[in-house]
Amino acid sequence: MQVSSVPGVARAGENRRHTRSWVWLCLLALFAWANVSLAAQDPLPSWNDGSTKQQIENFVHKVTTTGSPDFVAPEKRIAVFDNDGTLWAEQPEYFEGFFALDQVKAMAPQHPEWKTTEPFKSALAGDMKGLAATGEKGALELVVATHSGMTTDEFARNVNQWVSTARHPKTHRVFTEMVYQPMLELLHYLRDNGFKTYIVSGGGQDFMRAWVPAVYGIPPEQIVGSQGELKYEMQNGAPVLVKLPTVALVNDGPGKPVGIQRALGVKPIFAFGNSDGDQQMLEWTVSGDGARFAGIVHHTDAAREWSYDRNSSIGKLDKALDEATAKGWTVVDMKNDWKVIYPAEKQ
Amino acid sequence: MQVSSVPGVARAGENRRHTRSWVWLCLLALFAWANVSLAAQDPLPSWNDGSTKQQIENFVHKVTTTGSPDFVAPEKRIAVFDNDGTLWAEQPEYFEGFFALDQVKAMAPQHPEWKTTEPFKSALAGDMKGLAATGEKGALELVVATHSGMTTDEFARNVNQWVSTARHPKTHRVFTEMVYQPMLELLHYLRDNGFKTYIVSGGGQDFMRAWVPAVYGIPPEQIVGSQGELKYEMQNGAPVLVKLPTVALVNDGPGKPVGIQRALGVKPIFAFGNSDGDQQMLEWTVSGDGARFAGIVHHTDAAREWSYDRNSSIGKLDKALDEATAKGWTVVDMKNDWKVIYPAEKQ
Repeated sequence: MQVSSVPGVARAGENRRHTRSWVWLCLLALFAWANVSLAAQDPLPSWNDGSTKQQIENFVHKVTTTGSPDFVAPEKRIAVFDNDGTLWAEQPEYFEGFFALDQVKAMAPQHPEWKTTEPFKSALAGDMKGLAATGEKGALELVVATHSGMTTDEFARNVNQWVSTARHPKTHRVFTEMVYQPMLELLHYLRDNGFKTYIVSGGGQDFMRAWVPAVYGIPPEQIVGSQGELKYEMQNGAPVLVKLPTVALVNDGPGKPVGIQRALGVKPIFAFGNSDGDQQMLEWTVSGDGARFAGIVHHTDAAREWSYDRNSSIGKLDKALDEATAKGWTVVDMKNDWKVIYPAEKQ
Repeated sequence: MQVSSVPGVARAGENRRHTRSWVWLCLLALFAWANVSLAAQDPLPSWNDGSTKQQIENFVHKVTTTGSPDFVAPEKRIAVFDNDGTLWAEQPEYFEGFFALDQVKAMAPQHPEWKTTEPFKSALAGDMKGLAATGEKGALELVVATHSGMTTDEFARNVNQWVSTARHPKTHRVFTEMVYQPMLELLHYLRDNGFKTYIVSGGGQDFMRAWVPAVYGIPPEQIVGSQGELKYEMQNGAPVLVKLPTVALVNDGPGKPVGIQRALGVKPIFAFGNSDGDQQMLEWTVSGDGARFAGIVHHTDAAREWSYDRNSSIGKLDKALDEATAKGWTVVDMKNDWKVIYPAEKQ
């Protein structure tokens, strides 16, 4: 009170108040303008109108509307997405499997013994039947051989080179062109509504971090995947992290809530998957208080993509489909819900 | 070109352009106003003027100044902080050690066998000499007994209850009042300059996540610490994560760059620690391209806090101090660089 009786100080106070009023007017006008611009366009143009799109939009609307009983504060709007089969295709083989096969070929000159040792012999000969006969043990050996024994920087370079050149055997597209356009729109839509979007995938964390940021707009620290042990050491006077052949986390099935807890420490409110490997992540997500969303991409489009569920060895969707039906989770019917599959099909 | 020849559309276009110019003017004015307001106050008021404060401010200035050769884009402004001895005190025992001792007492009624079994017998009797005699093995047993066998939610409740009631044996303050005021200011200063601040500590990740967000303003997903294995299971029809007695990551020494890689996937540009357990994190941080900052809190204030370094069993600072001197890292002299230690001492 005493302060305001000093004339100079009072004027400074008034000026500050005037500046503040004017600042608020500007801010209000800016928000009004931003809202009009955003409302003008459909945020999910590649989704056909119908129940699935409506369920997504209803959820986002209710958790972002101030005063709604389901309102969720922005810092708690955490959305997690599986990657293989949810954000990009996964047939006839997980794309990271193609990477491993190509790496075996690239690394073969340094490993003459591979010519006569399984699973490398079949992998090098392109003998998929022989490779399949080596089973899970063979697959793991291929992954270990191509995902360890180098620094994290060297591995990232290998992945980047592969991602920019390798092509899918059926579509002949670069693999990153086989991401799902409707899901890219969903990621943007959620982020525009204050959500933080994460990948929570069974795929290798270091594999995804090499290309995911540019393709999905998700930064490295929001990418959670399967992880190998790392060793810190000095090479030529500089510190490096060497990828070891031992597994630290299989981020699949019951490993997904574990991966989420380790990386985030909070329960997401929105999760999207496509297979039984996502069941526990979806269960974990909907088990919290308040409004929750669980979504499943059901591959029903044999013409434009692939059609598979209960009997597929890749992306098997069986128990999670039953649980989705029983609990009323949102199930995307790819054939009927999506106008286009890949970005290149957009008009 | 054809579109603009339609009069109505042309007018709509002009209106939009006018709206945009006006919007830009508003934005520019807002930024100018914000800058003036911020420049008016010292962002590090609890730091004495001098070389240390200057080194911090110079670094922040050069990486945030557009056009500077050392400019770093906001998304790459990652700062990591050790916790024990860097952001809060750690004497005469790591505070999580006090938590473990108190938990043993709280859990003792459910464990009658502890009365006759070490290290629990000494812990329950308050016999610190007997406890010390059980060595690292005894300490690990105490941590395992108090940090596993319950769900992550139950553990968080235990920590929260302890944090809000337990008091330090010497200062008689609640432990969260023994955070360092100058470091709180540094965290704010960095965030105000577009940095993302992380904790990277040898302390338990779940222990820190229970109280760090409220005290340091750092969200759970930016808290990296030592981790135990977790198991996903159903309890009474609801999914839970049970804390297991096996260690997944010791986030200390060479484990710190590993923890950083797993959680972030990118190298920080700014790191602060206080002991040899931070040496590799500091080395890792400064090994990247461009401007880098490595800082060490040197405990030199026996009167207001504690004075210790090369010969301390808690927070030993020996090799990292030599490396700091050799490489010109910033070393905080707590006694001379800090006006106050704890928030309550602020005037």
